[in-house]
Amino acid sequence: MQVWHIPEPGGADALTLTERPDPVPGPGQLVVRVRAAGVNRADVLQRLGHYPAPPGVVADVPGLEYAGEVEAVGEGCVQRRVGDRVMGLVGGGAYAERVLVHERETLPVPAGMDDDRAAAIPEAFLTAWRAIALEGGLRPGGFCVVRAATSGIGTAAVQLVRAMGARSLGTGRDAARLDAVRAHGMDAAFVDDGEASLADAVHGANGGEGADMILDLVGGDGLPAALTALRAEGTLVLVGMMGGRRTELNLGAVLMRRLTLRAMTMRSLPLERRIQVVRAFEAEMLPLFAHGGLAPVLDRTVAFAQAPEAHRIMESGQHLGKLVLTHG
Amino acid sequence: MQVWHIPEPGGADALTLTERPDPVPGPGQLVVRVRAAGVNRADVLQRLGHYPAPPGVVADVPGLEYAGEVEAVGEGCVQRRVGDRVMGLVGGGAYAERVLVHERETLPVPAGMDDDRAAAIPEAFLTAWRAIALEGGLRPGGFCVVRAATSGIGTAAVQLVRAMGARSLGTGRDAARLDAVRAHGMDAAFVDDGEASLADAVHGANGGEGADMILDLVGGDGLPAALTALRAEGTLVLVGMMGGRRTELNLGAVLMRRLTLRAMTMRSLPLERRIQVVRAFEAEMLPLFAHGGLAPVLDRTVAFAQAPEAHRIMESGQHLGKLVLTHG
Repeated sequence: MQVWHIPEPGGADALTLTERPDPVPGPGQLVVRVRAAGVNRADVLQRLGHYPAPPGVVADVPGLEYAGEVEAVGEGCVQRRVGDRVMGLVGGGAYAERVLVHERETLPVPAGMDDDRAAAIPEAFLTAWRAIALEGGLRPGGFCVVRAATSGIGTAAVQLVRAMGARSLGTGRDAARLDAVRAHGMDAAFVDDGEASLADAVHGANGGEGADMILDLVGGDGLPAALTALRAEGTLVLVGMMGGRRTELNLGAVLMRRLTLRAMTMRSLPLERRIQVVRAFEAEMLPLFAHGGLAPVLDRTVAFAQAPEAHRIMESGQHLGKLVLTHG
Repeated sequence: MQVWHIPEPGGADALTLTERPDPVPGPGQLVVRVRAAGVNRADVLQRLGHYPAPPGVVADVPGLEYAGEVEAVGEGCVQRRVGDRVMGLVGGGAYAERVLVHERETLPVPAGMDDDRAAAIPEAFLTAWRAIALEGGLRPGGFCVVRAATSGIGTAAVQLVRAMGARSLGTGRDAARLDAVRAHGMDAAFVDDGEASLADAVHGANGGEGADMILDLVGGDGLPAALTALRAEGTLVLVGMMGGRRTELNLGAVLMRRLTLRAMTMRSLPLERRIQVVRAFEAEMLPLFAHGGLAPVLDRTVAFAQAPEAHRIMESGQHLGKLVLTHG
């Protein structure tokens, strides 16, 4: 099969098309013929040499999510059959014609959804849902700040927040693109120009109260200001650091308001925990895709053969929602 | 009754003895004749004007814990009677001859324990236990770092860690005083001289693994080094900042190892949550005081009339364990 691999870290053209043997399913495993694969910022970081694959995962082929159809099933599979349409997360290797997965970590593609849109679901929605519901503990009536609301995870988050009966304020640097996220359920917007006060904006949008939680894809030196936007005992869940790694922290403010700062990544989850998240998401949220309550926000598709171009688009940062590589 | 109050923030002599009306118990409440009251760093901060009392608590009388006997009971009390020996936490006001509390937030004084030692229990043991067991999620077999192990909370923490079937490494600046904490169940010591590596010490004491959690009373610019001593998905629970409020944070390290930093205080807990913690502690840990598995570490008692002297001792930082004001 064809795969994109990274012989040496570098720019977008470091991605190199090559041949690898087709995978063979072991007990409980499926081979999925990939029809579309989401592109993530993590893929770019991996290509640059900044985000190595976890142990046990193919080290030089990026790609964290896929949609396609089951092409072969291993011994003992009871949940999926050849021909089933599935989507899901992998620790790497989805920039390929086939992926090898455990049947229980797959999700059914919602009825009526094409592969390109399905491939835009797993990373964005599972990450956002785990951050908001499982790690952040957001409750109906709550208020969530989404830092970088125009991203794939951000556009998923504002929909999930609304589906949970809570409200969101999204942040971003580009007012026009940020405003477009309102159509997906975002309740308030904050253009992060480095001068306006996020805490003031949150208090204004939330009846004078701070936010219950922050889903933070940005980190960087805006993190201290973000923490001031939390209510007492609020939680910031860090899932990215597009704004940089270094920040200062005022422990006095953290301690006086008993804040929690928690970091999580999906890629590091061992199989059994990934399955737990996937199964809980299937029960609680997946039905909403069939009824219009949730929908992937697809910026555009790029042909599988043009993967380096998809990375250039990701790096330019002008997209809204997800980029997807399509085999179609 | 006599109370120590703070007419104006200032040094130890800002504490001023005055008269206040005796409290009268409402429904469900008790008046406790205070026989001894623990002295806490928070009292010093309050005296300096840095730690105001929470809403609904007497603003100018410090004191967060007491031991004594029930002198009067309000309507509807079912748990305590006049003459019962009790101890517990209050949001303030324990530098007094009497305190007014809800009966359900009191703990029975362990059989055979005198009032001075009993008054050394609530703040240290309830804070440490909530931090370790409830917020930090330490499990049997786990490994806990206690930053400032010679403090009242620290000496309680190392005992609780051992009682839970886990192991501890305590940090401190004075090698001799730190070594004395070993007698209370601390498994390893780390003298924090600003040069040695805490992470190396933890790995050395824990079979090459990082700590499951850190109970941090220090904060300050040693916090980043403390975080490097955690295993992946480890938790640092911040309950004090004797080392200062400002620190830098490397979000890359936090995100890559999916760490949690959580701050908590006891004083801010509303009544119903304080009762929850107290009742759970009573069920899980209080019996161990009767059997020698847990024991308050009392540095010395100071006569109630000499409260300013107790503050001076606290500020000199040469004590080991708790300071207690005694009416005895």
